[in-house]
Amino acid sequence: MRDDILGTLAHVAVLEKAGLLKADEAQRVRTALTELHAQAETFKLDPAHEDVHMNVEVWLTQRVGDLGKKVHTGRSRNDQVALDLRLWARRAILDAGDAARDLGATLLTAAQRNPDAILPGHTHFQIAQPVLLAHVLGAHAARMMRDLERLDQAYTRTNVSPLGAGALAGTSHPLDPALSAELLAFDRPFTNSLDAVSDRDFLHDLLYAQAVLLNHVSGLAEELILFTHPAFGFATIDDAHATGSSLMPQKKNPDALEVARAKAATAAGALAASLGHTKALPLAYNRDLQEQKRLVLETVPAGTRAVRAVASLVKTLTFHDDRMLKMAWEGYADATDLADYLVRKGVPFRDAHALAAQCVQVAIAKSVPLARLTLKEFKAISPKVSRDVFTVLGPEASVAAKKSPGGTGRDAAAKALESVWSDLEKTGRSFKANAQALQKATLALLPPALVKRKATR
Amino acid sequence: MRDDILGTLAHVAVLEKAGLLKADEAQRVRTALTELHAQAETFKLDPAHEDVHMNVEVWLTQRVGDLGKKVHTGRSRNDQVALDLRLWARRAILDAGDAARDLGATLLTAAQRNPDAILPGHTHFQIAQPVLLAHVLGAHAARMMRDLERLDQAYTRTNVSPLGAGALAGTSHPLDPALSAELLAFDRPFTNSLDAVSDRDFLHDLLYAQAVLLNHVSGLAEELILFTHPAFGFATIDDAHATGSSLMPQKKNPDALEVARAKAATAAGALAASLGHTKALPLAYNRDLQEQKRLVLETVPAGTRAVRAVASLVKTLTFHDDRMLKMAWEGYADATDLADYLVRKGVPFRDAHALAAQCVQVAIAKSVPLARLTLKEFKAISPKVSRDVFTVLGPEASVAAKKSPGGTGRDAAAKALESVWSDLEKTGRSFKANAQALQKATLALLPPALVKRKATR
Amino acid sequence: MRDDILGTLAHVAVLEKAGLLKADEAQRVRTALTELHAQAETFKLDPAHEDVHMNVEVWLTQRVGDLGKKVHTGRSRNDQVALDLRLWARRAILDAGDAARDLGATLLTAAQRNPDAILPGHTHFQIAQPVLLAHVLGAHAARMMRDLERLDQAYTRTNVSPLGAGALAGTSHPLDPALSAELLAFDRPFTNSLDAVSDRDFLHDLLYAQAVLLNHVSGLAEELILFTHPAFGFATIDDAHATGSSLMPQKKNPDALEVARAKAATAAGALAASLGHTKALPLAYNRDLQEQKRLVLETVPAGTRAVRAVASLVKTLTFHDDRMLKMAWEGYADATDLADYLVRKGVPFRDAHALAAQCVQVAIAKSVPLARLTLKEFKAISPKVSRDVFTVLGPEASVAAKKSPGGTGRDAAAKALESVWSDLEKTGRSFKANAQALQKATLALLPPALVKRKATR
Amino acid sequence: MRDDILGTLAHVAVLEKAGLLKADEAQRVRTALTELHAQAETFKLDPAHEDVHMNVEVWLTQRVGDLGKKVHTGRSRNDQVALDLRLWARRAILDAGDAARDLGATLLTAAQRNPDAILPGHTHFQIAQPVLLAHVLGAHAARMMRDLERLDQAYTRTNVSPLGAGALAGTSHPLDPALSAELLAFDRPFTNSLDAVSDRDFLHDLLYAQAVLLNHVSGLAEELILFTHPAFGFATIDDAHATGSSLMPQKKNPDALEVARAKAATAAGALAASLGHTKALPLAYNRDLQEQKRLVLETVPAGTRAVRAVASLVKTLTFHDDRMLKMAWEGYADATDLADYLVRKGVPFRDAHALAAQCVQVAIAKSVPLARLTLKEFKAISPKVSRDVFTVLGPEASVAAKKSPGGTGRDAAAKALESVWSDLEKTGRSFKANAQALQKATLALLPPALVKRKATR
Repeated sequence: MRDDILGTLAHVAVLEKAGLLKADEAQRVRTALTELHAQAETFKLDPAHEDVHMNVEVWLTQRVGDLGKKVHTGRSRNDQVALDLRLWARRAILDAGDAARDLGATLLTAAQRNPDAILPGHTHFQIAQPVLLAHVLGAHAARMMRDLERLDQAYTRTNVSPLGAGALAGTSHPLDPALSAELLAFDRPFTNSLDAVSDRDFLHDLLYAQAVLLNHVSGLAEELILFTHPAFGFATIDDAHATGSSLMPQKKNPDALEVARAKAATAAGALAASLGHTKALPLAYNRDLQEQKRLVLETVPAGTRAVRAVASLVKTLTFHDDRMLKMAWEGYADATDLADYLVRKGVPFRDAHALAAQCVQVAIAKSVPLARLTLKEFKAISPKVSRDVFTVLGPEASVAAKKSPGGTGRDAAAKALESVWSDLEKTGRSFKANAQALQKATLALLPPALVKRKATR
Repeated sequence: MRDDILGTLAHVAVLEKAGLLKADEAQRVRTALTELHAQAETFKLDPAHEDVHMNVEVWLTQRVGDLGKKVHTGRSRNDQVALDLRLWARRAILDAGDAARDLGATLLTAAQRNPDAILPGHTHFQIAQPVLLAHVLGAHAARMMRDLERLDQAYTRTNVSPLGAGALAGTSHPLDPALSAELLAFDRPFTNSLDAVSDRDFLHDLLYAQAVLLNHVSGLAEELILFTHPAFGFATIDDAHATGSSLMPQKKNPDALEVARAKAATAAGALAASLGHTKALPLAYNRDLQEQKRLVLETVPAGTRAVRAVASLVKTLTFHDDRMLKMAWEGYADATDLADYLVRKGVPFRDAHALAAQCVQVAIAKSVPLARLTLKEFKAISPKVSRDVFTVLGPEASVAAKKSPGGTGRDAAAKALESVWSDLEKTGRSFKANAQALQKATLALLPPALVKRKATR
Repeated sequence: MRDDILGTLAHVAVLEKAGLLKADEAQRVRTALTELHAQAETFKLDPAHEDVHMNVEVWLTQRVGDLGKKVHTGRSRNDQVALDLRLWARRAILDAGDAARDLGATLLTAAQRNPDAILPGHTHFQIAQPVLLAHVLGAHAARMMRDLERLDQAYTRTNVSPLGAGALAGTSHPLDPALSAELLAFDRPFTNSLDAVSDRDFLHDLLYAQAVLLNHVSGLAEELILFTHPAFGFATIDDAHATGSSLMPQKKNPDALEVARAKAATAAGALAASLGHTKALPLAYNRDLQEQKRLVLETVPAGTRAVRAVASLVKTLTFHDDRMLKMAWEGYADATDLADYLVRKGVPFRDAHALAAQCVQVAIAKSVPLARLTLKEFKAISPKVSRDVFTVLGPEASVAAKKSPGGTGRDAAAKALESVWSDLEKTGRSFKANAQALQKATLALLPPALVKRKATR
Repeated sequence: MRDDILGTLAHVAVLEKAGLLKADEAQRVRTALTELHAQAETFKLDPAHEDVHMNVEVWLTQRVGDLGKKVHTGRSRNDQVALDLRLWARRAILDAGDAARDLGATLLTAAQRNPDAILPGHTHFQIAQPVLLAHVLGAHAARMMRDLERLDQAYTRTNVSPLGAGALAGTSHPLDPALSAELLAFDRPFTNSLDAVSDRDFLHDLLYAQAVLLNHVSGLAEELILFTHPAFGFATIDDAHATGSSLMPQKKNPDALEVARAKAATAAGALAASLGHTKALPLAYNRDLQEQKRLVLETVPAGTRAVRAVASLVKTLTFHDDRMLKMAWEGYADATDLADYLVRKGVPFRDAHALAAQCVQVAIAKSVPLARLTLKEFKAISPKVSRDVFTVLGPEASVAAKKSPGGTGRDAAAKALESVWSDLEKTGRSFKANAQALQKATLALLPPALVKRKATR
């Protein structure tokens, strides 16, 4: 209802400018609407008046008489519905962005607090090469960065005012859509009235951006679920974020992670539904869009809550460096390092690759890591190996060697974290600017006292 | 294969800079690869060598001996696969963008060529208000504009080089990812190696942008299918773009439109699948991504072809202004204009609304349009009506009155068309710049003669 | 909560049989639960006790003391959740089936009440051949028939009791799952405990059956939306089932149809989400299933309501035979009949086809239907044509000629309607039997007085 | 093409019966078609003749002259396309069913060969209770059982002949759809011609059944991927079914499992697309159905191959009982058994539950399993504990105690396996009967020699 009142306040200014409301008429309506806004939370919608729009109008007419009947001049339920939905979507995007930014920051903070921990990196969920925990957390944060970018771009496409498009054709009154757009802090008014009342791309954009975000969160959730299993024991979830088993006190069901994982599927399904709603719809408004609206309003806030729950959980994770390091010694994850060593000794890559594989075979036969082979054993396979081979084997050496930009070497990984931090802050500033513009516009349309009340909601 | 060769040429430059290939070695490899590129079209992949990457390497080794074995130094199939996929996706986005831009331009051209035609605008697929055909076509073009924007943003996210990420951890050789990124005309190299080999957001982004594009096209297709039905007869499809019935020569099956409509569902399904592929996947590379790649490579080009087919069809549509205008007289589509007229005469909007409805009731009873009521009949309902009421009734007057910005009034509609044209050209320039950058990079990596041969493909 | 109480009553019987509750203990628990059931509607869940299951147990313990703590013996929240969900799903399927059966019956009734109306049948939404309205309605009813079948099969797969599976492994108490299955009117108990607590196929099955049902309804809705447009005017929606425009009283927005059309996309999206929830989940219970449950509980009842709304609308449709017949004369829809006529005169089909096409060409040039060509004109194209050609032309003759089984000829169409009626009734009996079994089981577990109270809900 | 020829052979018989082809004419056409069938594999389609149907007709006309032009009498491309698609779908279902049955049988065989192995059962992917490996494999097999049922039901809905429906209205020739239905081994002919040419439920049904099947396979694949990780080491994949790393010979990338997991998402996406294709389509045939057909023909066989690949992999898995048992000792998975023991000693369940939890706390503090607590320690918590407590602790005792039907106790689990075997065989017989009916019908329509050639394909 608050969105509807804000939109109506902007429309009143447009009517006043067009001479369809006199200054004092406009002021009376404004005062009444401000009053209604203050009681919006507790206002009981009368189902006899169809929808929220008519409820506002009827209330207004009871309050200011015939004047209330003028307020809908040059406006249609179609542009009004589109407006209210965009006002909602802007806030929903800012909220989703805030949750994504917080999760990103949480991951980066955790990464910077754990600069030394090493765990086995996986491909095909098989142990592949040792990597820094910080590099893993940074990879997840880098995904958030792209999510923020998508949300920011969705915001820009949402931030176009449809008010003034009328039912579908514009209006014959001399109304100025640019004025209401400005008052409501939109970047610009619509270009084409038919497009304005039928365009729901901004809902697709929001659902899509959230679906990819939750997709990323589902990957993070999956890793945390797996790595908190006793077989790995890489981390422990804080009691506050896991439902326990009253019977097995050590058992911690990672509910927030499981729910977030499931939300990725819910979001993808909602997106498919939303695209289905608008598929092959003729212009302009069709009631199908109401079903789409219902779905989006139900799905998006719950998705954002799931992201926040994961961020809370990550904030209180305890990592177990010893368990990680122990497993990083398994699986011959330093075989590539041995091959690279041979390349540096002048062996062509494919041959180096084959020789390293022979060394692994020997180590497997002995059930030891590569670093526990003797120099003699190495030399038997390749005379190019000398004592310095031991400086490249084992998880620490392997990680240390990955000095190339973007790699898991400590400096490289730290630099990558800085880079994501910086991007995160930059997009964060864009979000903040948008949020401030909304607040400023609301303040301008409504007396501060009321807004303050709203903020404490 | 061409993508793989281009990527390898860039990697050779990196190896040369790192001192892992000498200048003459690098040159020998380059010459061989250039030769292979020239025969890429007819090259038979040997299934014994697993994939295209190994085929290139094996061919190279046969050609330049042990030198060929060095080329994979510091590279992994994981960053190579990601690279080839991004090289492909860049072209696929440019192609999709070109098709969308062409359809948008086609719609705008058709709109500007038909500035006077009026048809009934619909809401709930019920006749609502008369609108310009040009405004309808402009609304569809405005959608394309947003599609181009999404594709352009997808391009930027795609245009990041993963080369140098190795299997997942980076490399211990002193390789410079920025160099290969620059040579391949990427905006920048990857930030985090784990992210580089596992990130497939750019495929989601492409599928999503195309799904919305096809969703828009499906709406256009639906309108054209409906409006070419004899019951409407608003337009006729050219024989070249409809399969006929050999039996009923006047029957024109709008195949291209039906297929494009169906492609909207195919694209939405592919997007849902693609999000499903990456849901809850742990880092880094998993073979699930190969299935995703297969799906995307199959789906996207066919979707783009469907867009082009619709553009071709629209280019040769014949519109029937008389049929459109005739139906615009039906359904009391000018009732809003009558209400607006009363508002201008001082009646509050809601009351004006009620009085206009009474006029419609009388007209329905007489089975005539509003413009055929007598002044006396009007006055019986509202004494505020005078003779000038007839200047606001009927489709032409109704359209002419919608002078507000973005409305269907002739000037307003023309201005909206200009605005979309201008946006379309601006994004078109961004696409062209990207395409030129790709071509320039290819030219720099390969002798011009070969590139010319490729262009004539 | 009622489902939970019923399940608990059945479990009490199992515990009694196993000697884990004495007869009088069991009776005390039963009495208490019966009492709770009576107040289930107004019972306030205490959030301190986590979920409905614990609320029931806590209430019970307050009521019957330590005895209450025994009730959960041999049961786990996992099998209890699965049980409650199956109890819910059985009712949801019966409800969906009832709505589908009602819509099918409504269509068949409308068909049988309109045995003579003829309208143009379409392919590619182009006029193809005249068909009976009854045949069109019968085609839609035939789809419902398959929907009922799918729902019935989904019911069978749902109707398996998971109670007794414990957390995942069964129980070490000598409990008899067959007894609780029987008491709750399940066809049989589970086969494998791990499967019992993790199987959610029955939710997929329900979502799928409803998605196809709504898909069918969306096709019907689309046709009704199109054919009530003034350009067709084949039917009028009753005021009670359309939201009007207060301004254009003749305008009837077919809201129920648009919403049902949109629900088809919502249902397909929910199905995609649900499949996503269980994709790649390891055994046994995972919290992802709670998100799936939430989605299904929200989606399914609303989908069923949409089907009922369409049935209500169809019940009060007014058909306009004259408008249908008029358009059936258009588009040379009897050209096939002319070709068939020539075949009967001995012309090979492909040649007859070509000759008929020539006749259509001549008729198009004269802007008349085929039946208005002269015999001379026919003979000029094919001497095989004689005066009796006029008995096969025009919509009535065309329809009358389609005597083959399943065709649109009046007798054939009537027979097809009978066949669908009979199938509908047969499946209807299966649904009724299932519903009665549920009611009987409830009656047996609870004193009749309470059940009566429930029925009046 | 073979499907088209078979369908045409059946149609020829119908024409002959109707007197539209004389006996000798019919025989000539049959001979020619038989000949064409023999060369179907190598036949080059001429794109000038649009599609496979016209290619057959043109070839026939070249072969038997004007007679060829008669063959299409009373048939339309619409019923022909629907027929060919159903002929294809029947085989595709049988193939999918065979793959599912094989995987189910493979799992059951593996289960029966490993009756003693015990591993930790999971909920929330946390260790919960010890279960038999055979019980886990049996749970996966039980899922296959439902998949077979769904496929069998899809078959029945597919097995209805659309031939004789004409373009949409039936035909004016006295053709008998029941005859062609019988000759082609369909259960029955269509009921309503409009439904016959537009119904694609059978494609939805097939896609759905396969999507759930692959969903189940994805769960199995996920468990195998996780449990073959060195952290678990429960099983090893045979080299033949994993791509190795040439560098780390012990690394086995479970490609077939990852691809099958991904295929679950592909199948769900294809189903969503297919439902989108038919959403809101008016009757009868629309070209959208061609896009749907293309998608289904591409998706389904690849999905079936993925199931077979997993079956092959499971057949050669090596299980490591020691690793499984070792982990079954972890996580206090026998805590429930301790609680159940206390219940049998007369402690109410909730109290027993609390006492067992205290025991676990003490064991955690000592870092030992429950079975390593002393009797004194137990008695300190509950005096009801006596020496026999040790007979219920530990994985073996825990599993042995689950004697309830469907539980993981050895006899119960074995019985469950028998039950699934028996169901599997029963449905298998239904599939076999269907396959034989198809073969018999083909044999009757075509001389055996040709069929044999086909069989060896």
